[in-house]
Amino acid sequence: MLGKIEHLGIAVKDLEASNNLYEKLLGTASYKMEEVKTENVITSFFKAGENKIELLAATDPESAIAKFIEKRGEGIHHVAFAVEDIKKELTRLENEGFTILNKEPKKGADNKLVAFLHPKGTNGVLVELCQEINE
Amino acid sequence: MLGKIEHLGIAVKDLEASNNLYEKLLGTASYKMEEVKTENVITSFFKAGENKIELLAATDPESAIAKFIEKRGEGIHHVAFAVEDIKKELTRLENEGFTILNKEPKKGADNKLVAFLHPKGTNGVLVELCQEINE
Repeated sequence: MLGKIEHLGIAVKDLEASNNLYEKLLGTASYKMEEVKTENVITSFFKAGENKIELLAATDPESAIAKFIEKRGEGIHHVAFAVEDIKKELTRLENEGFTILNKEPKKGADNKLVAFLHPKGTNGVLVELCQEINE
Repeated sequence: MLGKIEHLGIAVKDLEASNNLYEKLLGTASYKMEEVKTENVITSFFKAGENKIELLAATDPESAIAKFIEKRGEGIHHVAFAVEDIKKELTRLENEGFTILNKEPKKGADNKLVAFLHPKGTNGVLVELCQEINE
C-alpha cells in the first residue's frame, strides 16, 4: 500500500518569486534547492508538518514542467506517495491495471528513487511513488 | 504557520468508479463518505499514512466541482493544510497579501472549519486551511 504524501509538486514559472510567496504562505523558508538535470528542472523544498511542498521550475523550454505550464498554467503538477519498496509497489499496481510511465525507477530530487503512473488511469492525477535511497 | 497536508482534494466524475480505483491505488478502502449539501458535493475519504485523500463528486451541475471538471477535467482540485487556529492564520495571510475567499471560516466535511485562498495569489493552487472542530 502507499504511505503518506511525501510531497506535493507545484509547477511555477519564476522560482525566486514563488520561493518568497510560499515562504509567506507556509510560514517557513525553503530548506533546500536542487537541480535535477535529467528533468531540466530546479526544485525548491518546504516543510509542511511531516509533508513537503516541492516547487518545480523549468530550466529548458523542452522540460515537462515548461510544457505543463504552457498547457495548463501554473499549479499542482503531481502528488508523491512514500513507499517502502518501490519495485514491489510498481508490480502490484501494474497487476491492478495501472499504467506505469517508467517501470525502472529513476533517481529523483531529494535522494529518492521515483516512478510515475499515467494520469489517464488515475482520474487525471499524476501520481509519483518515491522510496528513500539508503546509502 | 501551516501544518501538515491534512488532505488532498481530487475532483472526480463517478464517485463509485473512483472509489474502486483509489482503493486499488492506495491499497486501502474509503473509510468515510459524506455529503456536504452546502457545496453540492459528495466526498469520500482515504488514508495515506497520516494524510488523507478526499475524492469529490458533484451532486448538482452548479457545484464548483462540476464546473472545475467541465473546465479542466478530473484531477487535483485543492490542497488542505491543517492549522491550529484558523482565524489567526487567516489574519496572518491577509496581512501577507493573500486573498481569502471566505474570511468567515465555514463548516466543511470531516468535522472541520475551513477557508480557502484565491489561487491567483498562490501560483494557481487552490489552498484550503482547515481546523479540527473540538466539540
